[in-house]
Amino acid sequence: MSAAKRSIIDVDIHHNAPNVKAIFPYLPKEYCDRISEWGLMFPSYPYMNGGKGGRRVDANPPNGGAPGTDLDFMKKHYLDPFHVDYAILTGEFYSVGLLPDAHYAAILSTAYNEYTRDHWLDKDDRLRGSITIPKQHPIWAAKEIDRVGADPRFVQVLVPGGTEKPYGNPIYEPIFEACVRHNLVFTIHIGNEGHGINPSPTGAGHVTYYIESRASRTQTMMAHMASLIFSGVFEKYPTLKVVLQEAGVMWIAPYLWKLDQDWKGLRYQTPWVKKPPSEYYRTNMYVSSQPIELMPNLDMFMPMMDAIFAKECLLFASDYPHWDFDSPRLAFPKLGQDYHDQIFYNNAAKLYSLEPRN
Amino acid sequence: MSAAKRSIIDVDIHHNAPNVKAIFPYLPKEYCDRISEWGLMFPSYPYMNGGKGGRRVDANPPNGGAPGTDLDFMKKHYLDPFHVDYAILTGEFYSVGLLPDAHYAAILSTAYNEYTRDHWLDKDDRLRGSITIPKQHPIWAAKEIDRVGADPRFVQVLVPGGTEKPYGNPIYEPIFEACVRHNLVFTIHIGNEGHGINPSPTGAGHVTYYIESRASRTQTMMAHMASLIFSGVFEKYPTLKVVLQEAGVMWIAPYLWKLDQDWKGLRYQTPWVKKPPSEYYRTNMYVSSQPIELMPNLDMFMPMMDAIFAKECLLFASDYPHWDFDSPRLAFPKLGQDYHDQIFYNNAAKLYSLEPRN
Repeated sequence: MSAAKRSIIDVDIHHNAPNVKAIFPYLPKEYCDRISEWGLMFPSYPYMNGGKGGRRVDANPPNGGAPGTDLDFMKKHYLDPFHVDYAILTGEFYSVGLLPDAHYAAILSTAYNEYTRDHWLDKDDRLRGSITIPKQHPIWAAKEIDRVGADPRFVQVLVPGGTEKPYGNPIYEPIFEACVRHNLVFTIHIGNEGHGINPSPTGAGHVTYYIESRASRTQTMMAHMASLIFSGVFEKYPTLKVVLQEAGVMWIAPYLWKLDQDWKGLRYQTPWVKKPPSEYYRTNMYVSSQPIELMPNLDMFMPMMDAIFAKECLLFASDYPHWDFDSPRLAFPKLGQDYHDQIFYNNAAKLYSLEPRN
Repeated sequence: MSAAKRSIIDVDIHHNAPNVKAIFPYLPKEYCDRISEWGLMFPSYPYMNGGKGGRRVDANPPNGGAPGTDLDFMKKHYLDPFHVDYAILTGEFYSVGLLPDAHYAAILSTAYNEYTRDHWLDKDDRLRGSITIPKQHPIWAAKEIDRVGADPRFVQVLVPGGTEKPYGNPIYEPIFEACVRHNLVFTIHIGNEGHGINPSPTGAGHVTYYIESRASRTQTMMAHMASLIFSGVFEKYPTLKVVLQEAGVMWIAPYLWKLDQDWKGLRYQTPWVKKPPSEYYRTNMYVSSQPIELMPNLDMFMPMMDAIFAKECLLFASDYPHWDFDSPRLAFPKLGQDYHDQIFYNNAAKLYSLEPRN
């Protein structure tokens, strides 16, 4: 069967509510009132994005709604023709992490999780959900995970890359404990870097342009990787799996070389980190592909894939319906069938406990 | 001639004053008084370092002083046996960038530059100096560059990686104008990330351990590279050369792949950026080698060296006398003579206008 015909799992599809009123049934009345008066009050992004409104222009459903808001259209436009067996929905509400009011972030998280369950997970067996949490208050976040986590269609907890402290910081332990309790993946999706209550998006302060903001995503993800490994999160929670989403993939190779090298000289300072960082990466971390980097010399593509342990750790993601969508048919140079099977299906099936490919 | 016998240029050697009193002759009396009473008042680093005090234990001079403070010992210990034809001194006073008082930072910069001239550059023809500046006040920084820049033994302006805004930000233009006026290289040496008046060292907040702080250096350098390129600094100052120092080197390959890819899709947002980012890197940027990453599969070493344009852009640095010193004899796998000549001598000679190798 040609690669274009083989079914796939896509781990990053952004569904969304058609408008804010769609979540009103899940909100206390006083919150509906304040949103009607003031809007959602998410701090607005001081940079451009790509494409039109950050979305594919051809992803607008015929009902006139925004891309990602109409399941029927999404099926016809993407899920069916690309043979998507499972779509992991990532939503667009991880931005609650920007809000100074953690209580409001918690209320919105609950509403969005309920909306996702009723309007998406209940409507199509291929869909799986991500739990939105108020990451700025780890104990309340854990409560929300406990509330939703019994539904096996929610397969992960999703947080933004931009955050007040790197995710290895021990303040986040209640979240990891809840993930482990419910066998949920912990996924860090880029977003909100340098924005809202988060610190500047780089270690050198605020950036000027959108393209630099995109470049900062890699940097922030590097910080999370180092933090999770060196704080010993994977020693404390050995079954925890973490996915790094939308920050590129090729940087992982030289970064692991550097971390392994530094660990060799400095491990006496963090004796709870018992293995080289690259081993924790291989056993506990995954990375999703979009936007995958292509290099001018494609002879380096497969060596780099091996250097990031793609056969075990790489998951295909399209980022549908965002403007920089990676098509399952075009994103990669031609892959051997073993790599294709692992990246486009088996790694995600194993990670999220999904059915093997038919 | 074997590689071990060929003379070299080392672009990162940390000299220092034996004690604070050594700079008193260059300071106004009221500053000597306050330093005598309160010390230098540099905010102290809330992490460990490596080795003993961050230095090679065998680099202590016989007079009992600290490593890097005694030129005679440095000659015997390092410059002579390793055939160092030119040593670019980087000092340890770029930390003036941490200080909230820009006036004090400016006074200290002047004193340290004078100390370096009198006690180092005047004493050995192999030595070249870096101009310390108060980077928190670009106009005063430019004044100091103008004051010192006529002395051709000062070959660069040196600033720390940790800073309030990435170096492409237009507030820094007076510094670049002064560099261009005096044909001085602009060198960003890691240091001070997340410290003093600088923002947190990662886009995800403060780190916990020294090893994470080291990992953040790469991130901050990425931010500077993107900022310099996308703010159009090299279009505005086409003769300006920038060196990235001590943040690793291999990350540059996948980062340039990513920047080129994003530029292709987003260049309409920054139309003053006329070429792919990798071309600005090749024409206007250099990177110094220490601490160079080695990978488990050394078959990738030369392809990665080519991917970072090592033959044109890589400069050998030892970081003497710091604990993670890279020996000129051991830091690299065996290199072809053409690569060795470029990296260990010719690239630096061209950049800093130094004599060709004998």
